[in-house]
Amino acid sequence: MPGGTLERLIAVASLAPSVGLSEPWRFVTVDDPSRRDAVRGNFEIENDLASREHHGDRGALYARLKLEGLDKAPIQFAVFADPDPTQGHRLGRRTIPETAVWSAVLAVHTLWLAARSEGLGLGWVSILDPLALARTLDVPTDWRFIGYFCLGYPETEADRPELQGLGWEMRCDADQTILRR
Amino acid sequence: MPGGTLERLIAVASLAPSVGLSEPWRFVTVDDPSRRDAVRGNFEIENDLASREHHGDRGALYARLKLEGLDKAPIQFAVFADPDPTQGHRLGRRTIPETAVWSAVLAVHTLWLAARSEGLGLGWVSILDPLALARTLDVPTDWRFIGYFCLGYPETEADRPELQGLGWEMRCDADQTILRR
Repeated sequence: MPGGTLERLIAVASLAPSVGLSEPWRFVTVDDPSRRDAVRGNFEIENDLASREHHGDRGALYARLKLEGLDKAPIQFAVFADPDPTQGHRLGRRTIPETAVWSAVLAVHTLWLAARSEGLGLGWVSILDPLALARTLDVPTDWRFIGYFCLGYPETEADRPELQGLGWEMRCDADQTILRR
Repeated sequence: MPGGTLERLIAVASLAPSVGLSEPWRFVTVDDPSRRDAVRGNFEIENDLASREHHGDRGALYARLKLEGLDKAPIQFAVFADPDPTQGHRLGRRTIPETAVWSAVLAVHTLWLAARSEGLGLGWVSILDPLALARTLDVPTDWRFIGYFCLGYPETEADRPELQGLGWEMRCDADQTILRR
C-alpha cells in the first residue's frame, strides 16, 4: 500500500457535500495493535450475539459470511460525526438535526468510491458496540459513531454483492421502491 | 430534460451499498402541481422559522442564499427510508439500527454523483417539516424522510460551495478532523 494512501482518500472524502458546509466528519486512524485487538474483541462479542438472531439455513449462511477484515486489512480507521457542529451555524438542520450525521455518511461514501476507483476495497463494519468502541479510541463522548473501516486490496473482485443470490435477500418490487405522486 | 432521466438515475442509485443488502431506499416522484405547491408552502413556513435563528450580518447573508429550486426544477422527488426493512434480515443492524437510514443516504449520494456526471444539478432541501411532507405525499407513516430534491440543469457552474468564502464557515483544523490512535 503506497504511503499516504489514507491521507489522500480522507482529503477526497472531505470534499463531500455537508449540510450548511458543516463538514462534521471526524476520522480516527487506528494503527495501535492493542487498540486493534480491542476492536476485534468488541466485534467478536457483538457478532456472537448477532449470529443468534439467525437460525436454520440462514444461521449456517450467516456463519459463512465475510463480515470484517480485521485480521488482514492493512489500514483501519473509524469515522465519527460531530452531531451538533458549530461550523455551519445549524443551516439546514432545524427540522432534521440528523443531517449532520448523514453528512459524515456522505464523506464515507465519497472515500469508498475513491478507494474503489484505484482498486482498493473497503469494508464497513457495523457489528460493534459503539460505546465500547468510543472508549477504545478515546474520542470525545459526544461524537456519533458511524462505522469502523477495513481498507486494503481485495483478494478477489466481484460484480455482485456477496449476499446477492445466496438466498439472503427478499427483494421488494419496483412499485414499492418508486411511488409517483 | 430527456425522458426517463430520473428513472435512469434511480436505477443507478439503487446499486448503492446497503446494510445487509436491505435496499431500504424509497423514491417518491412529485409531479402533481398541488402537491408541489404544498411542498413550497411547507418550505416557506420552515424557512421563515429558520431565518430567525440568524441575526445581523449572518441574517442578511442567510436571506440571500439559494436554498431550494422549488419554482424552477423540472424534476422533483422525495427520498424516504424504510427504517426497519424486512429485506436483509437485520444483518449488521443490531447495534446500529440507523444503518438502514444511512443506506438510503448512500443511495441519494449515488444519484447525486450520477446526476453531476451528466451536468445535472441536484439540490437537497432539508428545510421542511417531515411530518407535513409525509402527509402531503401520502406515504406509509413509518417511512423516515431523508430529503426533498430539486433536479435540473444548473444556470451556472461553480467549483466551490456557495457558502465557502462568504464568511459562513468557520473551519475546524485538520487535527480535529483526523485523530491518530
